[in-house]
Amino acid sequence: MCNFENKNNIKVNAENLSLNKIKQINCLQQKKCRDIQGLFLAEGEKIVSEIIANTPDSIEYIVSTPDYQIDTNKTFHHFVCDAATLKKCSSLKTPNKVIAVVKKMQQKNSNPSFILALDSIQDPGNMGTIMRLADWFGIEKIICSTTTVDIYNPKVIQATMGAFLRVEVDYLDLKDFFSTTKLPIYGALLEGKNVYEQPLKPHGILLMGNEGSGISKELVPFITQPITIPKKGGAESLNVSMATSILLSEFFRGEF
Amino acid sequence: MCNFENKNNIKVNAENLSLNKIKQINCLQQKKCRDIQGLFLAEGEKIVSEIIANTPDSIEYIVSTPDYQIDTNKTFHHFVCDAATLKKCSSLKTPNKVIAVVKKMQQKNSNPSFILALDSIQDPGNMGTIMRLADWFGIEKIICSTTTVDIYNPKVIQATMGAFLRVEVDYLDLKDFFSTTKLPIYGALLEGKNVYEQPLKPHGILLMGNEGSGISKELVPFITQPITIPKKGGAESLNVSMATSILLSEFFRGEF
Repeated sequence: MCNFENKNNIKVNAENLSLNKIKQINCLQQKKCRDIQGLFLAEGEKIVSEIIANTPDSIEYIVSTPDYQIDTNKTFHHFVCDAATLKKCSSLKTPNKVIAVVKKMQQKNSNPSFILALDSIQDPGNMGTIMRLADWFGIEKIICSTTTVDIYNPKVIQATMGAFLRVEVDYLDLKDFFSTTKLPIYGALLEGKNVYEQPLKPHGILLMGNEGSGISKELVPFITQPITIPKKGGAESLNVSMATSILLSEFFRGEF
Repeated sequence: MCNFENKNNIKVNAENLSLNKIKQINCLQQKKCRDIQGLFLAEGEKIVSEIIANTPDSIEYIVSTPDYQIDTNKTFHHFVCDAATLKKCSSLKTPNKVIAVVKKMQQKNSNPSFILALDSIQDPGNMGTIMRLADWFGIEKIICSTTTVDIYNPKVIQATMGAFLRVEVDYLDLKDFFSTTKLPIYGALLEGKNVYEQPLKPHGILLMGNEGSGISKELVPFITQPITIPKKGGAESLNVSMATSILLSEFFRGEF
């Protein structure tokens, strides 16, 4: 059971409302529902604090256990419920004190000179990690094939550690985009050139492929600069987020 | 129910045996049991195939569903059981067709000129990923504080993608080790020198700290070369396996 507390902390009877909210939160675990409602879930104190600090107006409402304190002067619609109810609302194993229902970020339609392109990344952990990496190197924009995992998947949001607030993510037809761009397209391919021998700077597009199958066959012909990370040892492959770490580091190492 | 099939594929009544084996496999999910028995579990076709190909003598026995085919001329003790029984034996969510019970690797006591040192890495995924990275760069040895997650944890084994077969891992008192080594000790510290400005080669020890708290206070004084990965963007931190990717790449980029 959730009780609604309004701005002035006056409790409002909200039994039906709370059931509706629980229903809404559960619905927002699904991409289809997020797309229709234009909302997503952010779970955990750290991420909710980041949203409050950076884009407070994007918060529709907050649901938390009674011990959660909102550390701000801003006022929010805030529903308090017990830990068991909150757990029912959560998609995560590790119980959190707070879930925020948040409006999706607005697209900036920026046109930066360095873009990270993701082709069918499936694992939410990899997607979140790659966004966090992009955020570390100050990359403004990631473009994703429409087959890439939704950034508003709660597990992705959790793994980004707040990077979704700073890195713009567009889902589009990469083939169409690559057909029109004038930027060089770097692609991580096994038969590419040794990345350590390339004079790289953050200008162009870096395309990373799916965890299992790599870059789609239909996108390979658009790659103008195939690159690879050479190896010395016995490992068969690198995970896509490790490979992205190393390649982004190569693009940006001259910038510091 | 598991049925024991011997080398000649003659079924042997094994009801009691199978219950004992299930008990043993469940026991091997625990570090204490792995330490006492000197055995660990490897789950999944890919990893089991790698063990069969590389160190077949280390396999005590294999448990699988009937559809699993061992792709080798070697003979193993092989128990066949239904998927539900195998699932009961597994620690992983994703069901696998096969689990191998394997003898722990023998220590080589090698003394290479580049060593990766891990201080209290807790997450099995990070540990496995870091081993895979080490394997990629041909690093022979990882030393870990005794507070670091067990490499024989089934989730670590799974995440290494076979790297545990090639990279030696020692658990020891890092303080004692650092007190006696003559190798330079590089440590990833926020206040370290810009790693991109250091002339690095794979000679020395690279020390990486815990996911939340970094390198222990008691180990910091041993660091002779504090290094850091500079950032341009808004991310607060990098995950330890991403940071390890970038740093190892810096140590080895001149080697290719």
